[in-house]
Amino acid sequence: MESGHPEARALMAQLWPHMGRAVVVGLTGAPGAGKSTLTDQLARALRREGLRVGILAVDPTSPFSGGAILGDRIRMAHIAEDPGIFIRSMATRGALGGLARATQDAIDLLDAAGFDVVLVETVGVGQDEVDVVSCVQTCCVVLVPGMGDEIQAIKAGIMEVADLFVINKADRDGADKVEQEIESMKSLSPPRPWESPVLRTVAAQGEGVEAVLAKIREHGAWLRAHGGLEAKAKARARLRFQGLLAEEASRRAKARAGQERVEAAIQAIADRHVDPYAAVAQILEGQP
Amino acid sequence: MESGHPEARALMAQLWPHMGRAVVVGLTGAPGAGKSTLTDQLARALRREGLRVGILAVDPTSPFSGGAILGDRIRMAHIAEDPGIFIRSMATRGALGGLARATQDAIDLLDAAGFDVVLVETVGVGQDEVDVVSCVQTCCVVLVPGMGDEIQAIKAGIMEVADLFVINKADRDGADKVEQEIESMKSLSPPRPWESPVLRTVAAQGEGVEAVLAKIREHGAWLRAHGGLEAKAKARARLRFQGLLAEEASRRAKARAGQERVEAAIQAIADRHVDPYAAVAQILEGQP
Repeated sequence: MESGHPEARALMAQLWPHMGRAVVVGLTGAPGAGKSTLTDQLARALRREGLRVGILAVDPTSPFSGGAILGDRIRMAHIAEDPGIFIRSMATRGALGGLARATQDAIDLLDAAGFDVVLVETVGVGQDEVDVVSCVQTCCVVLVPGMGDEIQAIKAGIMEVADLFVINKADRDGADKVEQEIESMKSLSPPRPWESPVLRTVAAQGEGVEAVLAKIREHGAWLRAHGGLEAKAKARARLRFQGLLAEEASRRAKARAGQERVEAAIQAIADRHVDPYAAVAQILEGQP
Repeated sequence: MESGHPEARALMAQLWPHMGRAVVVGLTGAPGAGKSTLTDQLARALRREGLRVGILAVDPTSPFSGGAILGDRIRMAHIAEDPGIFIRSMATRGALGGLARATQDAIDLLDAAGFDVVLVETVGVGQDEVDVVSCVQTCCVVLVPGMGDEIQAIKAGIMEVADLFVINKADRDGADKVEQEIESMKSLSPPRPWESPVLRTVAAQGEGVEAVLAKIREHGAWLRAHGGLEAKAKARARLRFQGLLAEEASRRAKARAGQERVEAAIQAIADRHVDPYAAVAQILEGQP
């Protein structure tokens, strides 16, 4: 499904009726916030309850090299032996919107495979990623004390999709300051029916992890009670539809035009013989 | 052009023959690296030579709030009074690929307007952004001493598109360590014909800024001597074509189907009556 193989579509159609059972939780935040460690600890806590856990580590910052992903794999190696946990690092850069599409498909697949909880860990700064985490059941934004002003700017982007704030490495200086900043940013944002709580963890020591899990469950119960699951499902359906439509409409248009005409159009743009909008219109309208 | 107004296309067609003269320089790197300050200082240095400078501050991390962008604006306020400098902060979240498309259009527009140099400053972590900066004439990756392991992971993603590394805040502890890490990552990457140099700056004091400018020019001369400008233009043309094709093919498919059918398809996905691939195929094939 990641690579967009044609057979994947038939598989998706077959599996689709079996999906929609897993609880999908997103963990996002600035690099260095300890998302992987927190993800790891949440997975262990869920495993202690006998639940099966799928982990998707999404890192679009590694389109060219496997460095960061490899790091994640090594970090999670000690939980990777557990057959009740499935870990997949996703960094392959595909077509436009490819990673978002692949991530959504992977969530569905883990869901269909019977994983009770799917944890989606992302750097959370790209538009695709914000889109993905904004549609999971519970979106946790992980912050850390002692980051500069520009780091705080990252928070602005994901402020309004956060269902839960986690201040990780909370034993460091500055946890109170981060909490104040979160509260002040929350007060500037449009009010939301669910008041996103701020929790503290020291994930490396497992501190506060059970409380995060409890709050994720409380949020799930709140969503069920307030029709929020339907709204999240609709938002996710819209995102998937838009992304797949762009990918598929584009693929069909290129197939109709043929590779030779597509390459000629690109060369004509590069040579400044035609502007990009006109070149695209010509391809779509079947003009030479 | 940012908002995708239909008249923008006619404007683009009119202006297209007048483009391709500006030197486009990308500045990317982790939040907190001081990209805005370096951009500001480069703009001042260029102004001292009488050149006109366009600045695009691209921040896709702010799709919901104007916080970070406002910060940039305030920071650059003292240069914004200069009529030889045009600053535009871009954070509007549009359709799929919207920000990448809008950024490319804005580069072209500043080019057509006669700006000698266009500086594109981005957080550099999203896929769209990596795509954009990978096609500018010179891509500068800005790093800073004293960031943790996960910050270094960001570098992996943009390692292979960097034409120039800048260690900013180089008066801080750890500059040597960052340089060693860059060199070690370079040695792991596939060899490139242009050996990307590593420079040091303290942008807040203007230190090293002239050297960065000189190196950007050296890279430009190297590209001209080695046919690199044509390759960059082709890569940029391909990126624009793919992005616009997806946007336009998708827009036309939705217009053909009509809003009612599109909304029904999205609802059917949300209700799990149809899988997303099948829903998209039905819309594209005109099936009910």
